[in-house]
Amino acid sequence: MHQLTIVKIGGKIVENPESLTAFLKDFTLIAGDKILVHGGGRLATALAERLGIETKMTDGRRITDAEMLKVVTMVYAGWVNKNVVAQLQKLQMDAIGLSGADMGLILSLKRPVKEIDYGFVGDVKEINAPALLELLTQNYLPVIAPITHDGNGNLLNTNADTIAAEIAKALAFDCNVRLIYCFEKKGVLTNEADDDSLIPVLDGELYRQYKNEGIIQGGMIPKLDNAFQAIASGVKEVIITCASEINTGKGTYIR
Amino acid sequence: MHQLTIVKIGGKIVENPESLTAFLKDFTLIAGDKILVHGGGRLATALAERLGIETKMTDGRRITDAEMLKVVTMVYAGWVNKNVVAQLQKLQMDAIGLSGADMGLILSLKRPVKEIDYGFVGDVKEINAPALLELLTQNYLPVIAPITHDGNGNLLNTNADTIAAEIAKALAFDCNVRLIYCFEKKGVLTNEADDDSLIPVLDGELYRQYKNEGIIQGGMIPKLDNAFQAIASGVKEVIITCASEINTGKGTYIR
Repeated sequence: MHQLTIVKIGGKIVENPESLTAFLKDFTLIAGDKILVHGGGRLATALAERLGIETKMTDGRRITDAEMLKVVTMVYAGWVNKNVVAQLQKLQMDAIGLSGADMGLILSLKRPVKEIDYGFVGDVKEINAPALLELLTQNYLPVIAPITHDGNGNLLNTNADTIAAEIAKALAFDCNVRLIYCFEKKGVLTNEADDDSLIPVLDGELYRQYKNEGIIQGGMIPKLDNAFQAIASGVKEVIITCASEINTGKGTYIR
Repeated sequence: MHQLTIVKIGGKIVENPESLTAFLKDFTLIAGDKILVHGGGRLATALAERLGIETKMTDGRRITDAEMLKVVTMVYAGWVNKNVVAQLQKLQMDAIGLSGADMGLILSLKRPVKEIDYGFVGDVKEINAPALLELLTQNYLPVIAPITHDGNGNLLNTNADTIAAEIAKALAFDCNVRLIYCFEKKGVLTNEADDDSLIPVLDGELYRQYKNEGIIQGGMIPKLDNAFQAIASGVKEVIITCASEINTGKGTYIR
């Protein structure tokens, strides 16, 4: 069975050439098969601002009109994705940068309009697991940009955390999957201001308790919901940590 | 032996949704294996203008500083490439959008500075033919954006006509390759203002004559140089035509 590590990195790492280089060097040291899923939201916001396009967020999710869809597709699938691929090629990793439209990798459904119209935002419907497995078998390193398609010719903006979890779940039948979410903090903290307040292991019960007490809140909740869904679907290990700790074993382990 | 058709389309087709849709429908009707190489220069120029970045061209080639490299990577490998892939997926073609960095497909060398410093412009050094053949064998339809890499972590802007010719040449040993260049006119004309002045067949001798007489000039010369080099390298057929004629057999045939 493939040993597969899926790492998700956010915009803060990719926008800084030095932090990206340092991260990618660590990333290449991970044994076994690897998939990298990246964001780039901060760079998209910066480009939108230069173009005079207003960035609107609701609960940490980007409202994506037609103009913003162009921006995120250009930034995520264009600049960030190809830059990461070129860096990995330099490090002798045979990277291949893909969006969810390529090879029909990620089919999504435009989010229905309820209280909020998210615009061109897609919720993942299906992952093309055989195509990803074939790439891994051929020793390619897929680098996935969080742009998907609806099968009807439309690109859609999809949350990168969710994509990482959905890919992990889809491959859990064929691989021993480890999913690592990298973000700014060293893991899930009980006190955001205190890096020493790391929760080493978080199970469902403790998660519910911390949510009820307001200790875990905000943008961490959808990330952890993704993490727990992945575990429930057969993913062997989910770790929430920071980019510089992916090889140290430090971080919060989801059980 | 694979029957392979490589089609190159320019910015004018990709920037207009209707002309792109019409072209892609015709394109899918081509029998045998297919590779699509696209430009997007006009969209890149438009984005650069919105960002206040000046577009400088020399002999039809874009001077590419660091800011312009971001622009062309975003437009070519991001917006245009993924939009084309999504449209092809809608048409039931299993398209995969790639830059020259992905799978190490196109290694290039930054153009040395002589009279002109082109900046981050790459001249093709090597095509990864086995990787492209493998994709074709697996029934994928590669859609290639004209961004390459130098193997040292740098992306480079490379002319799409040249990429199409280099891919054609690299695959000519394993496939019966037909290369179709689409542009605005119905083919090579002896009088640019008269669509009826099409040259049906152009061989090396006639080409030299027309060049000497100034009948063929400007941007057509590098395109034709690419075409003749492809024929000399074993490509079976090179046709210069317009996007709406790719299935009619009309256009200028290079011999």
